[in-house]
Amino acid sequence: MIRLQKKLFYNGNIYTMSAEQPIANNVLIEANKIIALNVESAPEAELINLAGKTMLPGFNDSHLHVLNFGMNLNIIDLNGVSSIAELIELTKNYLAKNDVKAEQWVFGWGWNQELFKEKRMPNRFDLDQASKQIPIVLTRTCGHLAVVNSKALNLLDISAKTEVTGGKIGKDESGSLTGIFAENALELVYKWRDNLDVSGIKSHILKAAKKLRKMGLTHVQTDDLASTNAGYQKVMQAYYELADENNLPIKFNLQLRLKTPAEIREFLSKNSLSKYSDYLTLGPLKILADGSLGAGTAALRKNYHDQPNNKGKLAYSYQEMYNLIETAFKNNLQVACHAIGDRTLEVYLAILGQLQPKFNQQLRNRIVHCQISDYKLLNKMAELNISADIQPAFTATDWQIVAKRVGKEREILSYAWKTMFDLGINAAGGSDCPIETPAPLWGISCAVNRQDKNNKPEGGWLPWQKLTLTDALKLYTKNAAYNCFKENEIGQIKEDYLADFTILAGNPYKISETKIKDIEVAGTVVNGNLVWN
Amino acid sequence: MIRLQKKLFYNGNIYTMSAEQPIANNVLIEANKIIALNVESAPEAELINLAGKTMLPGFNDSHLHVLNFGMNLNIIDLNGVSSIAELIELTKNYLAKNDVKAEQWVFGWGWNQELFKEKRMPNRFDLDQASKQIPIVLTRTCGHLAVVNSKALNLLDISAKTEVTGGKIGKDESGSLTGIFAENALELVYKWRDNLDVSGIKSHILKAAKKLRKMGLTHVQTDDLASTNAGYQKVMQAYYELADENNLPIKFNLQLRLKTPAEIREFLSKNSLSKYSDYLTLGPLKILADGSLGAGTAALRKNYHDQPNNKGKLAYSYQEMYNLIETAFKNNLQVACHAIGDRTLEVYLAILGQLQPKFNQQLRNRIVHCQISDYKLLNKMAELNISADIQPAFTATDWQIVAKRVGKEREILSYAWKTMFDLGINAAGGSDCPIETPAPLWGISCAVNRQDKNNKPEGGWLPWQKLTLTDALKLYTKNAAYNCFKENEIGQIKEDYLADFTILAGNPYKISETKIKDIEVAGTVVNGNLVWN
Repeated sequence: MIRLQKKLFYNGNIYTMSAEQPIANNVLIEANKIIALNVESAPEAELINLAGKTMLPGFNDSHLHVLNFGMNLNIIDLNGVSSIAELIELTKNYLAKNDVKAEQWVFGWGWNQELFKEKRMPNRFDLDQASKQIPIVLTRTCGHLAVVNSKALNLLDISAKTEVTGGKIGKDESGSLTGIFAENALELVYKWRDNLDVSGIKSHILKAAKKLRKMGLTHVQTDDLASTNAGYQKVMQAYYELADENNLPIKFNLQLRLKTPAEIREFLSKNSLSKYSDYLTLGPLKILADGSLGAGTAALRKNYHDQPNNKGKLAYSYQEMYNLIETAFKNNLQVACHAIGDRTLEVYLAILGQLQPKFNQQLRNRIVHCQISDYKLLNKMAELNISADIQPAFTATDWQIVAKRVGKEREILSYAWKTMFDLGINAAGGSDCPIETPAPLWGISCAVNRQDKNNKPEGGWLPWQKLTLTDALKLYTKNAAYNCFKENEIGQIKEDYLADFTILAGNPYKISETKIKDIEVAGTVVNGNLVWN
Repeated sequence: MIRLQKKLFYNGNIYTMSAEQPIANNVLIEANKIIALNVESAPEAELINLAGKTMLPGFNDSHLHVLNFGMNLNIIDLNGVSSIAELIELTKNYLAKNDVKAEQWVFGWGWNQELFKEKRMPNRFDLDQASKQIPIVLTRTCGHLAVVNSKALNLLDISAKTEVTGGKIGKDESGSLTGIFAENALELVYKWRDNLDVSGIKSHILKAAKKLRKMGLTHVQTDDLASTNAGYQKVMQAYYELADENNLPIKFNLQLRLKTPAEIREFLSKNSLSKYSDYLTLGPLKILADGSLGAGTAALRKNYHDQPNNKGKLAYSYQEMYNLIETAFKNNLQVACHAIGDRTLEVYLAILGQLQPKFNQQLRNRIVHCQISDYKLLNKMAELNISADIQPAFTATDWQIVAKRVGKEREILSYAWKTMFDLGINAAGGSDCPIETPAPLWGISCAVNRQDKNNKPEGGWLPWQKLTLTDALKLYTKNAAYNCFKENEIGQIKEDYLADFTILAGNPYKISETKIKDIEVAGTVVNGNLVWN
């Protein structure tokens, strides 16, 4: 049945994201490829009547954690919790409902003390109210900090004297443990997380990927290697098997969290950077260079506004980061560096300024998050051709805390998405899921409105940094494709491009901008395969 | 009273349009200059409490006709007229109310047959219903075409045999005159317009400039030399006298409409291109290279969609335009070329491609209007560093006719303001007043919404070409300053810049985008002089 290989999408609002031809009347695909736009007729094609729906290039999340997302589908969801009392209640309910046994570890994710009416972090004694028999670990929304109960502390065998390089174990004024663990110290508590086998990892990835596709994503760039203590080899094996079995519902780029030059070399001796299939590509190297703003662990050039003796902390010394990046460059591996604080940005840019010319390369090295910035740093980024991977949803989550953390003067130059566009920095959009919901339409809404779900603040936060809808759509299509070297195959609806589309029930151009987030995803096309939601 | 030289503007929303420091708490000026932002105190300054108002760099219109605007304040306003019957009625009323005598010429401006329920142009016989004794000339909104009554035809002594090079005298199928005059033929009817003396010209300019300031403009780039048949010398004298008398309420750049190399040389032998005062600067050369889309006289590469044998017409041959531009470059004079059709754009860009490298200069040569375009032409513009002077209000006026005139395929790549920003073309905003209202807030609203006054079409016309509010504000501030070489003195609120501000009663960032047009202008500051409306 060769004729069924062709499909004609017509009778919709088709926005291509291509400057040469911004809209199309219809799109003809054959197997996994777009073969023509605006055809007069297509006698051999299956006709797909879009019936007034909106079709866009498939959405692509430039930075998230698919495996974590899958694992989190099985843990306590603490997003949006508004008090410590509610946190305790939710945890108690989860234990009862899931019939959790004593000494079986339980994990939760998503709390944010800024949303608590108590305006403080929870501690071990709060969590003891949920259980004194079951060890509990509740991670803050940022992923850089967690609180555990007393049972967990006992099982972890941690004393007030335990120290972890690059990490923090919370103590109160009297020196007693508070139950708080931050940064590298988290490894102590996460080692108890399910020690997954390959089939378990595959099941989490699949479950997550199906959910992501429903939300309109056809491609993700995921940072999963360090998400379990199973070791990255098992994660890689899981992805290879899923690809070999043609079982991946969407396309993946793996962001490689490798922590030392030796680890990079070892990884590359066993894995090839060339494209594995349309569905699986490896790279870039992911470097986690600082913490988060909420936890006060992002590295700043000057002290936190509300913490006079704290500048945060770099996860690597200058030389360590230099060595990591040099190793990547020697192996022709692109680098994506998590940088939330301006100090991290400064150090990373300085190293790239040294190393890029030396290797005479243009690997589209990337900055993930890029939150606290100023015009000079952004200019330097543009000069060095560094791309950004931004999380528009952070504007909704963070708008009330940024001035508190860094003061007004640094606030007004931060989360500067529009300035990036103005300077010609290629900015791609992502969710950092499970930090934020992976729904691209929420990210797009945030980029356009810079408001939270209650449409606050009025007029949007730092409103001169709002993006147009088209630029916001580009974040998740054309620009996300560029950052992973796929701008000639996905991200636009164009002849010879792969047939990856997201189909929306409503037209975001025709409604009020605050309604964009409510548009339903009607379906997706991945490599020519159409699935209606 | 030296201390009164200083003024501190505080307690408002101050948007600077500077990327380094996008907002300010307060602005301290001394005489005509900004001396500091965000001062802690200013004991010697007069305190100007903005009381929550919004302050921006002063608005700058990058292309309009101030003298025409002044003259039009004394003629029949035909903007928005919705039928030929109404046109006749308005004209009759004007004649009665102003007690016009027989043989005294009467002029009107602003009709547009697209808005008429008859959907045709008026003719001499329609106008004869208003008067057969008084000569009447009613110009179309585009300024490229007019209709006169039979009395005017008699006085003009025009027969069916009269021909004008580069112009058109309308005839019906039987060869009789219809009363229509287009392009160069308009000179025949305009020569009867008031043959103004210098004091008349000064009075028109002053009247217009005061009105423009009320609307929030502190700077205009005006094309006036050919606006009367008094000759450009008198217009120049009027401006010099107004500047010498310190009588200009706002700042002016004169766009020099000179039609031959000889005229350019003659002009430059008597006038200096160096800055005359803060209020008066000469340049660029203005070339009127084609007509208008509405009148079907803009020069296209392919026929008009609704006029199978018409491509419009270039006002100059390639060689004539080449000679004009070469003469300008030899004299270090920037060029701004009116180009509405894509053919005109193509020819102008080809000539600049030849001449710019030859003169090894960067005069920020400009394209005024730049309506019918495509991605390739805009890329070429970017490559040659050509600036644009766009009229956002044209989107509201033209959205219903563009597809009719040029077809869907050319429509979707035209009026491509956002693409210009994406390509790094410096686009400045203007009104082409009296073609459109000179109110900058209307232009800003159109750039953001791409809708007419009834908020049509839904979602905006070619909505991917919408600008963010900040970019729309830049059109009339920072970008307009760049096009006239004043980016280091006006267009941003920055230390050492001139104190030119526009103060708005409402904050455009805090209201729904369709309400921007309704914000009231509270006052203006020009060279340090504050005037509340």
